[in-house]
Amino acid sequence: MRLTKRFIVLGVAMLLITSLFQPVIGQQTLKDVKKARGLNDADVLAAAKTFMPRGGRDEYFAFLGTGNSGTMVVYGIPSMRIYKYVGVFSPEPWQGYGFDDESSLMIKKGSLDDRIESYGDMRYPALAETNGLYNGKYLFYSDGANSRIALLGLDDFETKQVIAHPLFINCFPGVAVTQNTEYVIQSSQYPSPWDSKAADIENEFDTKFKSGITFWKFQDPQEATASGHHIGRMIKEESFTLELPPFTLDYFDAGRKGSDGLMVGVADKANHHYIYIVDYNKLAGLKTRKVNGAKVVSYIDAIDAGAVAMIEIPAHASKVKVTPDGKYFITAGDEAFVFDFTKVKDAMANKTYSSDKAAGGIPIIEAANVQHGTMKLGNDVIDIAFEYRPDVVYASLFNDKKVVRWNYESLKKEDEIKLDFKPGQLMVPQGLSAEPHSNYLAVVDKEGLNDNFASVGPVRPSFQHLIDISSDDMTDLYTMSIPQANIYGSVAVLRTTIKPIIRYKLGTNTRTGEISKYKTVAGQEKVERKGNRVHIFGTLIRSHIVPEIVEVNEGDIVTFHLTNLERAEDETHGFTIDTYGKHGSFEPGKTASLTFTADRPGVFPYYCTEFCSALHLEMEGILLIKPKGYKEVKQEELVLTKEELEGYKKNYEDKLVVINQTQDIINGVVQWLKDNNYQDYPYVKALVEDAVDQLNKAATTKEYYEKYAKEGKWKDAFLWAEQYWQYQVKAADAGLRAKKLLSEKLGKQ
Amino acid sequence: MRLTKRFIVLGVAMLLITSLFQPVIGQQTLKDVKKARGLNDADVLAAAKTFMPRGGRDEYFAFLGTGNSGTMVVYGIPSMRIYKYVGVFSPEPWQGYGFDDESSLMIKKGSLDDRIESYGDMRYPALAETNGLYNGKYLFYSDGANSRIALLGLDDFETKQVIAHPLFINCFPGVAVTQNTEYVIQSSQYPSPWDSKAADIENEFDTKFKSGITFWKFQDPQEATASGHHIGRMIKEESFTLELPPFTLDYFDAGRKGSDGLMVGVADKANHHYIYIVDYNKLAGLKTRKVNGAKVVSYIDAIDAGAVAMIEIPAHASKVKVTPDGKYFITAGDEAFVFDFTKVKDAMANKTYSSDKAAGGIPIIEAANVQHGTMKLGNDVIDIAFEYRPDVVYASLFNDKKVVRWNYESLKKEDEIKLDFKPGQLMVPQGLSAEPHSNYLAVVDKEGLNDNFASVGPVRPSFQHLIDISSDDMTDLYTMSIPQANIYGSVAVLRTTIKPIIRYKLGTNTRTGEISKYKTVAGQEKVERKGNRVHIFGTLIRSHIVPEIVEVNEGDIVTFHLTNLERAEDETHGFTIDTYGKHGSFEPGKTASLTFTADRPGVFPYYCTEFCSALHLEMEGILLIKPKGYKEVKQEELVLTKEELEGYKKNYEDKLVVINQTQDIINGVVQWLKDNNYQDYPYVKALVEDAVDQLNKAATTKEYYEKYAKEGKWKDAFLWAEQYWQYQVKAADAGLRAKKLLSEKLGKQ
Repeated sequence: MRLTKRFIVLGVAMLLITSLFQPVIGQQTLKDVKKARGLNDADVLAAAKTFMPRGGRDEYFAFLGTGNSGTMVVYGIPSMRIYKYVGVFSPEPWQGYGFDDESSLMIKKGSLDDRIESYGDMRYPALAETNGLYNGKYLFYSDGANSRIALLGLDDFETKQVIAHPLFINCFPGVAVTQNTEYVIQSSQYPSPWDSKAADIENEFDTKFKSGITFWKFQDPQEATASGHHIGRMIKEESFTLELPPFTLDYFDAGRKGSDGLMVGVADKANHHYIYIVDYNKLAGLKTRKVNGAKVVSYIDAIDAGAVAMIEIPAHASKVKVTPDGKYFITAGDEAFVFDFTKVKDAMANKTYSSDKAAGGIPIIEAANVQHGTMKLGNDVIDIAFEYRPDVVYASLFNDKKVVRWNYESLKKEDEIKLDFKPGQLMVPQGLSAEPHSNYLAVVDKEGLNDNFASVGPVRPSFQHLIDISSDDMTDLYTMSIPQANIYGSVAVLRTTIKPIIRYKLGTNTRTGEISKYKTVAGQEKVERKGNRVHIFGTLIRSHIVPEIVEVNEGDIVTFHLTNLERAEDETHGFTIDTYGKHGSFEPGKTASLTFTADRPGVFPYYCTEFCSALHLEMEGILLIKPKGYKEVKQEELVLTKEELEGYKKNYEDKLVVINQTQDIINGVVQWLKDNNYQDYPYVKALVEDAVDQLNKAATTKEYYEKYAKEGKWKDAFLWAEQYWQYQVKAADAGLRAKKLLSEKLGKQ
Repeated sequence: MRLTKRFIVLGVAMLLITSLFQPVIGQQTLKDVKKARGLNDADVLAAAKTFMPRGGRDEYFAFLGTGNSGTMVVYGIPSMRIYKYVGVFSPEPWQGYGFDDESSLMIKKGSLDDRIESYGDMRYPALAETNGLYNGKYLFYSDGANSRIALLGLDDFETKQVIAHPLFINCFPGVAVTQNTEYVIQSSQYPSPWDSKAADIENEFDTKFKSGITFWKFQDPQEATASGHHIGRMIKEESFTLELPPFTLDYFDAGRKGSDGLMVGVADKANHHYIYIVDYNKLAGLKTRKVNGAKVVSYIDAIDAGAVAMIEIPAHASKVKVTPDGKYFITAGDEAFVFDFTKVKDAMANKTYSSDKAAGGIPIIEAANVQHGTMKLGNDVIDIAFEYRPDVVYASLFNDKKVVRWNYESLKKEDEIKLDFKPGQLMVPQGLSAEPHSNYLAVVDKEGLNDNFASVGPVRPSFQHLIDISSDDMTDLYTMSIPQANIYGSVAVLRTTIKPIIRYKLGTNTRTGEISKYKTVAGQEKVERKGNRVHIFGTLIRSHIVPEIVEVNEGDIVTFHLTNLERAEDETHGFTIDTYGKHGSFEPGKTASLTFTADRPGVFPYYCTEFCSALHLEMEGILLIKPKGYKEVKQEELVLTKEELEGYKKNYEDKLVVINQTQDIINGVVQWLKDNNYQDYPYVKALVEDAVDQLNKAATTKEYYEKYAKEGKWKDAFLWAEQYWQYQVKAADAGLRAKKLLSEKLGKQ
C-alpha cells in the first residue's frame, strides 16, 4: 500500500504529530469507528436515525422563534441541519432584505414613525391553518421589542408584510392563529400607557397603564397575483383590539373544533395569577372607538357581553395550550391544571362567577367548577406539548432536568426522561395543530454546558435536542446548536405540506407578487434620465451584468432596477456597488431596485456577489460618477494588436471544438430520454424543460458568436462562444440529472 | 403494552393518518432503522464518523468565508454543527454587534466617511500564524464590497478591529498572513482609480486605473490589557501599499520557510494571465509617498529593486497556493503548474527575464525556466488543497464533478472521487499552515440540486461536503447546509489550539480589552445628569435590572451603561428598550453602553431578551420619558392589602423550606467533593469555584430577605428569598456537574 510505505519511511520522529490526525490505513469497519470515536450501540442507533442518506429528504420543516435575532431559522427534522435564515424584523444582507427598495419600503411601512428598527424579539411563531391543520402557506411572528407583526410566505420563504402595532409599546413575542386563520392574535406583554403617553408607574399604574389583545383580520386571497403567487394580508382596518387593565400577559392559544371562537392566555397582576378566556366572535360584534387609527373594544363592554372572564391559578404559569381535540386547555406551573372548555363556556353563558373580581371588574370563574382535574408534575414547568396518541402530553421540568409524558384525561404519569440539561420549550411536529405527529420531540437547552459541544467563548448558541418519542421509551437522539438565536418556541410542519417554488415569473416584485414595472428583458436594457433622476433598467445572466458601464453625475439620484433573467434552479445573482453600501440578491426571475444618491465622485466597480458559475468573476461592470467640471476624454477606437487578435481566434476555435463535443453529449441524452418516454415522469419532465430552456436561451448567443466570427471580431466571438458553452453545460447538466433520475425510476443502471 | 392497545382501539380509520408519522412500538434495532430510512452500510459508517456522542468534542473549529453575509460562521468538524455566527462587516443583533456604542464606534472608525456599511463580502479568511503554524489567537477577513479589513480575537470570538482601506475602491475578498503574522496581506480586485477620482474606462484605463497590494503591519502585544486579554492590532501607520498597473487581482498566498518574505498571486489583464511574485521585505525598504494618508511604494521602484516579477500562464487560474514546506507554489486552470521558489528567487536575483514585459514594465519570468513541472488535471479547477502526507494535493474540477488527489512532486494522479455535484472551494483542516492534517476535506457545493436536501424556495444555502481522506479511498461522508452565506474558502484549526475564555473580568469593554470607565458594581447603580445629558450606571443579574425605574425628560440624550455582574457560564443577559431600537447583549462581566435621544415621550418597558432563568420574565424595568409640561403625580405610599401581605408571607415560608432542602443537597455534594480531593482536578475545581462564587453572591441576598422578614415586609422578603434560591440552584447545579465529572474521572458511578 502506497501510503503505508510512505509513513514507514517518515519514521518515529513523526509519531507525535501523526497522532494528532490519526491517519487510517485501509477501510474501517463500524466496530473500528465505534472504538475510535467512543460510540456505544445507542449512539450508532441515534446516528442512523438522524443521518440523511443521498437522495433522502427530511420529514419536517421546523421554524424557530429566535428571540432577539429578528430572523427566522428553518431546519430539517430528523437531520437537524439548518436550511435557511430569513430576515423578518432584522435586515439580512445575504438575501438583500432591508437593502433593496422593495423590502426596505415594506419594513419602513411597518415601522413606527418611519424608523426602521434593525432587530426584533420573536419567540413563538404560528403557522397558518385550515380546519385546524397547518396548510403550509404562511407563517406569522410577533416582535416583542419593537411592537410589530410579520407575515411570511412559504412558497418562497420570504417576509411579505410587516405592520407596526398602533397601540402597544411592548408586545408578547408570540402569536396564535384561529383554526381557519380568520385572525392572527397578538397581545401586549408588559403594561404601559398606549399612544406614547407618559404616566407614573407608582401612582398611575391602574389608571393609565393598559394591556390588550389584538385580533388581526387575515385574508388569504382566492386570486393569485400577476406573478402567480397567493400572498395573504393582515387587514389593519378590519382588525380590532380588546383593551384590558394593566395585566402582564404571557403565552396564549386559540381554541379549535368545539372551542373555536375562544382564546385563552396567561395573565398576571401583582401577586395574582390568571388564565383569561376571551370570546373573540362576541367581541367582533361590539362597538369600537378609534385610538391612533385602531379599533378598540373596551373591557367594560366585553364584560357586559360575556366575552371575557378569568380563572385564578395559584402560581404563575409559563404556558396555556389547547388540546388537539379542542376539548381542554392545560396550564402548568409546578402543578398542571386541565380545564374543560364546555364547563367554561357554560359558566360564561350562565355567569356562574366568583364573588371576587379581577382588575377592572373582570369576572372570575372558580377553577374548581371548570376543571377536569389537576396533577402535580414537578418543579418549574416551562412548556407543554401534545402528540397524536390520544390524551398524551409532555411537560418540561426546568429545575428537575426532565421531560414527563403524562395523560391529561386520566391525569397519570406515563413515563419520563432524565436529561443532562434544564429543558426549556418543547415542540412536537404539527404539535400546535389538530393533528400532532408522534415521532419526535424537540427540546430547547439554553446552556449547553455538559453535552457534546466545544466552547466558543462567553456566549453560546441555544441547543435543540431531538428526542425520539415514537416508542414507549423516550431517547435523546441528537443535539444541534443554533447560532445567532435565543430559541424559544418553534413549530414544525410535514415537509410535503409546503410547496416551494423553484423560480419566479420573470419580473416579479417578490414582496407584492406583482410584476414590477421595472421588469427588463434581454436587449431592452437602458438608462433613463430626467433632470438629476437616473433610472437604470438592467439585467443579470451568467456571466453578464447589462449595462456594463454606467455614467452619472455627482449629485444624481440613481436607481438600478435589475432583473435576473435566469430560469435555472438556484441561479441567484448578487449585485453590489463597491463602497456605496448598495446591495441586492436576485433569484431567478426577480426584479428589485437599489436607489442611492451619487454623492461621491469616482469609479465604482459593481459585480455579482454570488458564485454563479466558473466565470463568476467576469460578471462585473463600472459605475462612473463624474464630478462637477469633469472633462470627457476624446473617444478613440480601442484596437487589439494582431497578436491579441490571433490569441482570441485560437481561443474561439478551441471553444468550438468543446461546444461540438458537448452537443454530442446532449444529443445522446436527448435521444435516450425520448426513447424512455421521459414526458411521463413529472419531475424528469421538469428537468428536461429546464434544459431546453437553457438551450433556447443559448440560440441568440450562437447567432452572436457566428456573426462576430464572420466579421473577424475574434474577441467578441470568443466571449459569446464561451457564453454559449456555459448555457450548453447547464443544459447538459440538467439533461444528465434527468437521465439519472429516470434510470433510477426504471430500475436500470 | 400500553400504547399498542390504544392503537388497536383506534382502529382502521386511523391507518391512513398514522402512516404519516409511523409510530414505532417497542425498541428498534439498527437493522430496522436501516430498512426504515433506506440506509446502506456506507451510510451507517458515515453516520458513525460524524455523530457526536455525549461528552464528545469536535476535533476542529472551521471558520468560513461567507461572501456577502458579512458574518463569520464557525462550525465543528466532524459533527458539522454550526456553533456561532459573529458579526464582522454586518451588524448582528443577537450579540448587539453594531448596536451598543462600543461596537458601533469600532465599525464607524473602520468606515469610509463615517458611513456604516451594513454588509460586506468576505470570502477567504486567514488564521494568525507563529512559525507557519496556526496559533489560534486571531482571524482576519477582507471586505471586497466595502474595502475594509477586520481582525477577530479567538479567545472570545469577537471582532476587535475594522479598518477602511484608504486607497482601494474594491478589494479582493481574501487575506493571507506571513508566517509569523508580521503582515496581513490584502489586495485590490477590480482596478479603479484610487482616492475617488473619476476616469474614463475606455480611454484612461491604463493611465488612471490602478491595482495594488497592501501589507498591514500586525502587532501581537506581549502585554495583556487591563482585562487580561491580548488584543492584536493592525497598525495603519506602519503599513504600506505596492501600487500596480490595472490588473484584476485574484487569490494570493504568502511564502513560508525557504520562501518566507515572498508572496504570490493571480493577476489578469486583457487576454493575459499571470502569477505575480512580490518580495515584500525588499518593498519595506523602499521610499514611499503618501496618498490619502497611506504609504505607497511605486511599481517603478519595486521593479528597480527586483521586488516584483510575473510569470505568464496560458489561462486564468482561480488559485495559487504555497506548498506546506514552502518549496513550491501551485496554480491550476485546467492544467496545473508547479513552480519552484528557489528557481524563481534565482531568476529575480539574476534578472533572468523574458524580453516581453507585463503592463507597467513589470518583468516576466519564463514559466519553463522556473517550473518544477505541469500536469493536466481536467476541466475548470476551482481550488487546490494540501494535506500532511508529503507532496499530496487535491484539486476540485468543477465541470468534471470530481476531486482529484495527485502528487505535486511526481506529477502523477493518485486517486479521484466522483461527486454528485460541481465541487467548489476545498479545505483541509490546518491546510493553509505548514502542517495540514489528513483526516478530512471539506468541499463547497453551491447548488445542492440532487443530494439530500429539501427545497426551500428559489434561493438555497451553500453546502459543505465532508470527505473522509484518511484512507486511500476518499468517501463523501456528510452534507451540511450553511444558511445566510455564499461559501467560498474556509480555514479550520485543531480545537485545542484555541483557548476560549468563559467570562470577562468585571467591567470589560470587550472591543478594547480595557476596563470600562462605566463599569458598575452591585449597589453603586446611579443616574447622573448634566443639563440634558443623562448617564445611567446600571447592573444586570438574575433576575434584576437595576435601576428598575428611570425617569428622563423629552429631548434628553440618554446613555444606559450596563454591567453584567454574573460569573456563571453562559449567563448572558440581553437588554432592549421597547420601540426605541436600542438593544445590547451582555455576557458575564461585560460593560457596554447604549446611547439615544429621548425624542418620543411615553412609558417604555425595558427588559432582558435572553432566557436567563425561570424568572427571566421578571427581569424588566420602566423608562419614563416625560413630555414638556408633564405634571408629577403626588407620591402616595403603596400599601398592600392584608390578604396580599399574607399571601406573600406564605410564599416566603414555602420558599424557605425549599431553600433548606436545596442547601442539604449542596452540603452533601460539597462533602463528597472534599472527600474525593476535587481540588486535584482542574476542570472540576473550576466548577466548584463557580458554585462557591454563586453562593458568596447569595450571602448578601440572604441578609436582605432575613431583614425584610423581620420587618414584616413579606413581599420584599419573598422576592429576595426567591432570588437567593436562584443562586442556590445555580450553585447546586455547578456542584452536581462537578460531582458527575469527578465520578467519571474516578471511574465510579
